[in-house]
Amino acid sequence: MDKILRIDMGAQGGPKMTTEPVGEYLGLGGRATTSLIVNKEVHPLAHPLGAENKLVISPGMLSGSTGAMTGRLSVGCKSPLTGTIKESNAGGQAAQVLARLGYAAIILEGKPEGDELYKIFINKDGVKISVDNSLKLLDNYPLVEKLRGEYGDKPAYVTIGSAGERQLLAASIACTDPELRPTRHCGRGGVGAVMGSKKVKAIILDDSGLKHRTPVNPEKYRDANRKFVEGLRKHPVTGEGLPAYGTNVLTNVLNEAGGYPTYNFKTGVFPNGAKISGEAQAELEVKRGGSATHGCHRGCVIQCSGIFNDAEGNYVTKQPEYETVWSHGGNCGIDDLDVIARLDYMDDNIGVDTIEMGATIGVAMDAGLAEFGDGAAAIRLVEEVAKGTPLGRILGCGAEITGKVFGVEKVPVVKGQAIPAYDPRPIQGIGVTYATSTQGADHTAGYAIATNILKVGGDVDPLKTEGQVALSRDLQIATAAIDSTGMCLFIAFAIMDQPETFQALLDMLNAFYGTNLTGDDVVALGKKVLSAERDFNKRAGFTAQHDRLPRFFYTDPIAPHNQTFSVSDEEMDQVFNW
Amino acid sequence: MDKILRIDMGAQGGPKMTTEPVGEYLGLGGRATTSLIVNKEVHPLAHPLGAENKLVISPGMLSGSTGAMTGRLSVGCKSPLTGTIKESNAGGQAAQVLARLGYAAIILEGKPEGDELYKIFINKDGVKISVDNSLKLLDNYPLVEKLRGEYGDKPAYVTIGSAGERQLLAASIACTDPELRPTRHCGRGGVGAVMGSKKVKAIILDDSGLKHRTPVNPEKYRDANRKFVEGLRKHPVTGEGLPAYGTNVLTNVLNEAGGYPTYNFKTGVFPNGAKISGEAQAELEVKRGGSATHGCHRGCVIQCSGIFNDAEGNYVTKQPEYETVWSHGGNCGIDDLDVIARLDYMDDNIGVDTIEMGATIGVAMDAGLAEFGDGAAAIRLVEEVAKGTPLGRILGCGAEITGKVFGVEKVPVVKGQAIPAYDPRPIQGIGVTYATSTQGADHTAGYAIATNILKVGGDVDPLKTEGQVALSRDLQIATAAIDSTGMCLFIAFAIMDQPETFQALLDMLNAFYGTNLTGDDVVALGKKVLSAERDFNKRAGFTAQHDRLPRFFYTDPIAPHNQTFSVSDEEMDQVFNW
Repeated sequence: MDKILRIDMGAQGGPKMTTEPVGEYLGLGGRATTSLIVNKEVHPLAHPLGAENKLVISPGMLSGSTGAMTGRLSVGCKSPLTGTIKESNAGGQAAQVLARLGYAAIILEGKPEGDELYKIFINKDGVKISVDNSLKLLDNYPLVEKLRGEYGDKPAYVTIGSAGERQLLAASIACTDPELRPTRHCGRGGVGAVMGSKKVKAIILDDSGLKHRTPVNPEKYRDANRKFVEGLRKHPVTGEGLPAYGTNVLTNVLNEAGGYPTYNFKTGVFPNGAKISGEAQAELEVKRGGSATHGCHRGCVIQCSGIFNDAEGNYVTKQPEYETVWSHGGNCGIDDLDVIARLDYMDDNIGVDTIEMGATIGVAMDAGLAEFGDGAAAIRLVEEVAKGTPLGRILGCGAEITGKVFGVEKVPVVKGQAIPAYDPRPIQGIGVTYATSTQGADHTAGYAIATNILKVGGDVDPLKTEGQVALSRDLQIATAAIDSTGMCLFIAFAIMDQPETFQALLDMLNAFYGTNLTGDDVVALGKKVLSAERDFNKRAGFTAQHDRLPRFFYTDPIAPHNQTFSVSDEEMDQVFNW
Repeated sequence: MDKILRIDMGAQGGPKMTTEPVGEYLGLGGRATTSLIVNKEVHPLAHPLGAENKLVISPGMLSGSTGAMTGRLSVGCKSPLTGTIKESNAGGQAAQVLARLGYAAIILEGKPEGDELYKIFINKDGVKISVDNSLKLLDNYPLVEKLRGEYGDKPAYVTIGSAGERQLLAASIACTDPELRPTRHCGRGGVGAVMGSKKVKAIILDDSGLKHRTPVNPEKYRDANRKFVEGLRKHPVTGEGLPAYGTNVLTNVLNEAGGYPTYNFKTGVFPNGAKISGEAQAELEVKRGGSATHGCHRGCVIQCSGIFNDAEGNYVTKQPEYETVWSHGGNCGIDDLDVIARLDYMDDNIGVDTIEMGATIGVAMDAGLAEFGDGAAAIRLVEEVAKGTPLGRILGCGAEITGKVFGVEKVPVVKGQAIPAYDPRPIQGIGVTYATSTQGADHTAGYAIATNILKVGGDVDPLKTEGQVALSRDLQIATAAIDSTGMCLFIAFAIMDQPETFQALLDMLNAFYGTNLTGDDVVALGKKVLSAERDFNKRAGFTAQHDRLPRFFYTDPIAPHNQTFSVSDEEMDQVFNW
């Protein structure tokens, strides 16, 4: 990872590529690399779909090594959905392969004129950019299928579906999993639309003939990795809950806590929640010959994913995540796992963020476009997105646009991005994260659910305002650092509770890079990333006034706790005052 | 004008009205009243279509008197289109009537639950609010026709069409002219959507049995008014150009200056401009038995309006304004006055801003929804708005939403509001106004065209950056004051060039209120209004970064002058540094 591949898609005479030394980004990865580059190189008032925006794709610091959990790929840009800086990351194989190819980042910049569609093939021999208009408007599954015919089963495929090509604001970038299914998505913030604006349909990454990246101290690395894996395996969340039931283990938990947003955030309990819980899902998956335990990339030891088959035992989609099950499920009043799995497949195929899409259907239901609970209608709405009809384009642009076009007042977004599966009124800590995150509403930016609900890393009462700002601050800092390592964020459960597992992570970094990082250095890295992101957002016009939840969270109490969000503005403004 | 009518549309058991003394707003009117009330009473982060927003309707300081040109009605709220504070004003009869009824303001607040649609009737005997669901989804012409059947020909009607009911972001509020046609619109900023969100379909204002408002010193008032009218009649713009050709006299002027945005801001000259010029329009109007000279309210001595008939001599619409002719004309490559008049009628009937609608069609043409120059296609697009289809809802939400939904990069908006009929690259002064106005892009907020192009009030070279900030500043201050008097903004041409006409205006104000206002006081009033608006916007999260034009004005030169907008950010930030 000592070089950066820069491709000017708008160069006269066709895309022009250059390779440059990694320079100031040496030793960084993932979110640190994407956010520092975007902040340095992108005009903060650039149109997100214009030539001035850049799409930066970066593997994590430890990606491509033999270390466990190091498969996250970060994608950064100015977001067309939020207008803020954006880092969206996904699992799958791409990060490992890109890292082994030696690239700390791919930077797509400029914007081609005309209608040619491009694909980019990278292997050990170099980079090949070619026009391939036969890929036009292919969705992710058939697209990858077609590309496999040409490039085989070795590469990792990074692709956009029709939504990205149409530059819809909820468009994602898909990464293939070990079985070459386009199921792992950089979902949030419309990064797929930016890739679409550059007219890049697919990036094919082939590490054939290349080896794992070598640590400075291989033995220490192996040892630290072993301890790290032990730590993950012994923690109840990463060693039991997630492997057995996946992230959807949270449905019953959140429903019991009264923090499960139901019917577009009208109540905090979904009466039929158990029907779509992780427990029910895992049982169904196993019964139908799928799997409740599966890794999204090689080297994963948590295995929170799975395979969802239909009643006939045919593959439908990967195991839908908790947030996906929520957004299309309880949020829309839908209690049918088959409908939810179908929607998950459609979202992955079209290439749209499942959280944004489900939140959007909820808003559309509030607008009267469908009844809450009507799964067939929800499927019809997503079919509109696939077809690119005017209605489909509205929905594919997310909850905020849908709310505006249909005159819906109650639209659960922050900075234009949909609020995920945890209501901030009965869980105040996550509200602080939603409101203040540099990314728009994003639970992963500072997952206060861990401490508010799961009691990981301490215990902060979710119903009270005390301690929420400090909790969110610490989590946002830690997350920004973890998102830079290439590590899956789920390692946080173990490292928050087990000091020896956190030490093992530090040991891995130090063994790999020959450094002497301490916990303080990790905190400093997180702050550095957040500061760069905040700097970009400030120059893009974002202020404290944007670090707020929509008004209805302050004015409309939600059952069963009948609370509003009540962390004061003054407290909120202290999140980044470290 | 010593009282305020406050109606809580969301009160338990139905709308609840109270009358309160005018209090601190005594002696103010129009924009001063609406902006001060909105800034004081509306939460800056309120959802514009929610219960926390308020719609404030206010006649000008001199409205309802015998003074000339005093018929402007101001409507204020938080704008659903821009997110800023908004004041949108219109001619027609409503301001005069409301002032004679004694109301300094009507404040509509709260939001009813359920689907009942309301009308509000006000006469000398009081206020009557009633449910009338028979009005549902009626557009403005048939709506006023129906209301006239019930309330007769005496009242002024303030109404919304289907666009306002649907809460489309470009929805306007219509005011009837002396012949009871709903042709004078508070067009900008989506004020009609706010009225729609309050479920108020029509406000019927009847001043039967009431007299003109009486000045403190009637003789001085009569005398000052006479001098004021003389001044208007002798100035070449207000005495000759506007009466003869209306505002559309500008088409040839702007085309010759190379500042006429053509094909969605791709070039500065429309080759067929002469075909849709004011001169051509006036000739056609007269030939068909319409009129090229008509006043939008009683007491108008400029008479810049007119009547546009079809080839058979049947009324089509009022004489379309320059900005309307531009937005649907050269901006869309359309050179047919009959098509433009038809579109103007449709916009008025549905109740959408003609500037926003035309700019939106231009963006839609860039998106490939129609060919530039295809008038029939433009009509079909506006028919979609009338029908409320998904496509129509997108278009009815304006240029920014349309650009986002269809992935168009070049979208001419500031703060979400469409840039009107003057390109800011060859006319830098108007660019300063567009970017920095408290209202989003709005030529009327500080009409630098006067001095850049028409050489009224001095001569500032439109192609250079020098002097533009000071020009825009002075004009924005003066405009904020004039918008408070109830005077038509077109008086500015005469008072900028003729000190004695400005003095006559001051004499009118002083004779009416028994005051001793000087020019400095007028400036102070303008600053007070702007400061309140800026205060609201700041608290709503607007910053210097929002006081910028879209990036393409900085990066893409426009023919024939091949200039970009080049007033520096540092200079722009001095506009309100007085």
